[in-house]
Amino acid sequence: MVRYKVILAYDGTVFQGFQRQAKARTVQTVVEAALRNIGWEGKAVLAAGRTDTGVHALGQVIAFDLNWAHSIQELQRAINAHLPSEVVVRFVRQVSADFHPRYAAQARRYQYRLFCDEVRQPLRERYAWRVWPEVSTALLRQLSNRLIGTHDFAAFGTPPRAGGSTVRNITSAIWLDDGPELIFEIIGNAFLYRMVRRLVFFQVEVAQGKVDQGELDRLLVDWVKVPVRGTAPAHGLTLIEVIYSTGNT
Amino acid sequence: MVRYKVILAYDGTVFQGFQRQAKARTVQTVVEAALRNIGWEGKAVLAAGRTDTGVHALGQVIAFDLNWAHSIQELQRAINAHLPSEVVVRFVRQVSADFHPRYAAQARRYQYRLFCDEVRQPLRERYAWRVWPEVSTALLRQLSNRLIGTHDFAAFGTPPRAGGSTVRNITSAIWLDDGPELIFEIIGNAFLYRMVRRLVFFQVEVAQGKVDQGELDRLLVDWVKVPVRGTAPAHGLTLIEVIYSTGNT
Repeated sequence: MVRYKVILAYDGTVFQGFQRQAKARTVQTVVEAALRNIGWEGKAVLAAGRTDTGVHALGQVIAFDLNWAHSIQELQRAINAHLPSEVVVRFVRQVSADFHPRYAAQARRYQYRLFCDEVRQPLRERYAWRVWPEVSTALLRQLSNRLIGTHDFAAFGTPPRAGGSTVRNITSAIWLDDGPELIFEIIGNAFLYRMVRRLVFFQVEVAQGKVDQGELDRLLVDWVKVPVRGTAPAHGLTLIEVIYSTGNT
Repeated sequence: MVRYKVILAYDGTVFQGFQRQAKARTVQTVVEAALRNIGWEGKAVLAAGRTDTGVHALGQVIAFDLNWAHSIQELQRAINAHLPSEVVVRFVRQVSADFHPRYAAQARRYQYRLFCDEVRQPLRERYAWRVWPEVSTALLRQLSNRLIGTHDFAAFGTPPRAGGSTVRNITSAIWLDDGPELIFEIIGNAFLYRMVRRLVFFQVEVAQGKVDQGELDRLLVDWVKVPVRGTAPAHGLTLIEVIYSTGNT
């Protein structure tokens, strides 16, 4: 048995999130079904994290143990041959037997796409959130800058386990231009439940002039214990990359 | 009654093409249903052209006659309120009573997107064709350059009516870089059936080294009467714009 690390990309639109559920089509369900087709007999794959219903991924990471007699390239092709068109194995490598994609992860990189338009754009809205009225990019950039560092993000999400810490370390938070779209890119050691989408929603509200800019400072303090209302929709969010230290990829 | 010109955008993935059919979900069907909801009693909208099953549009143009007591903005909102998420009215204006979106059109602009990768990319393949092995961009550009001008394109498509002319005038044909994607943009007075997709397929075959470059010259002559085999898939193609002379928009 050898442990393999696999990078998955998927279109979240057609899945009820990553994690296996009894009666829903999830990414984990279809990936495990594909693995069983090539001889995998494990109970569950290990994953770097869960993505919510509708959230996309270019760089979700999973790991599993498998007896495989052929090459890595053939393993990738064999799994992909059993996956539906909305999910794909982008990369496979052999890792040490104790590699765990969640515990070994040092950071996660997410991107959230949005564009401003009064009228719908069918060819854009599968992967980006339409926002109106227009936002101030300058304000967005002031806000994202303020997110960098170690803060208590209790106002922007709940921890994986009740009572767990809500302090997270954000190493990068930036609004990028991509033609008519804006991309919020954030890198952090870990994220609270729905944290990226709440941060996007909040920044958009400020950048539309609906909420005062000073509100952010008030929220990034440790006595705020209830998440703000308002979450940007899932379809704008993509898990881009899970980052590991060299030597432990 | 006033005649309105309307620009439509749609995601072709979920439609059986533009043109109304008895038992299929087409763009024309859902647009006419929306118009009936706001009081339109016509038989059929006029359209600049048909798009095939799976082909997208940012700038399809239709026209219809309607009694409408409110503003243009309210007309746009009213139609959009009755359209499904995959199709939208991007623009409405009043035109002269004899405006016909097909006969008045001077040119059409299409874009075809593709990217080169050995492995599937679920987040890219709804709107772009995945091609492998890699193509030579230099060769693509030599070929597209050769398409400009007036040629007999019988080798690349069939005319709307049997026996009709297969001569078309191409004013622009260019391969643009868009990050990891390549866009073939072509502007012509009109196009034969599946002509853009056949031109893309042919150019890709040459740019992959499967067909000799000189073959294009042999095909752009008037004694070739049967279209070449091979059509690039519909999902890479988008009707970007229908061009009218100023004063007749």
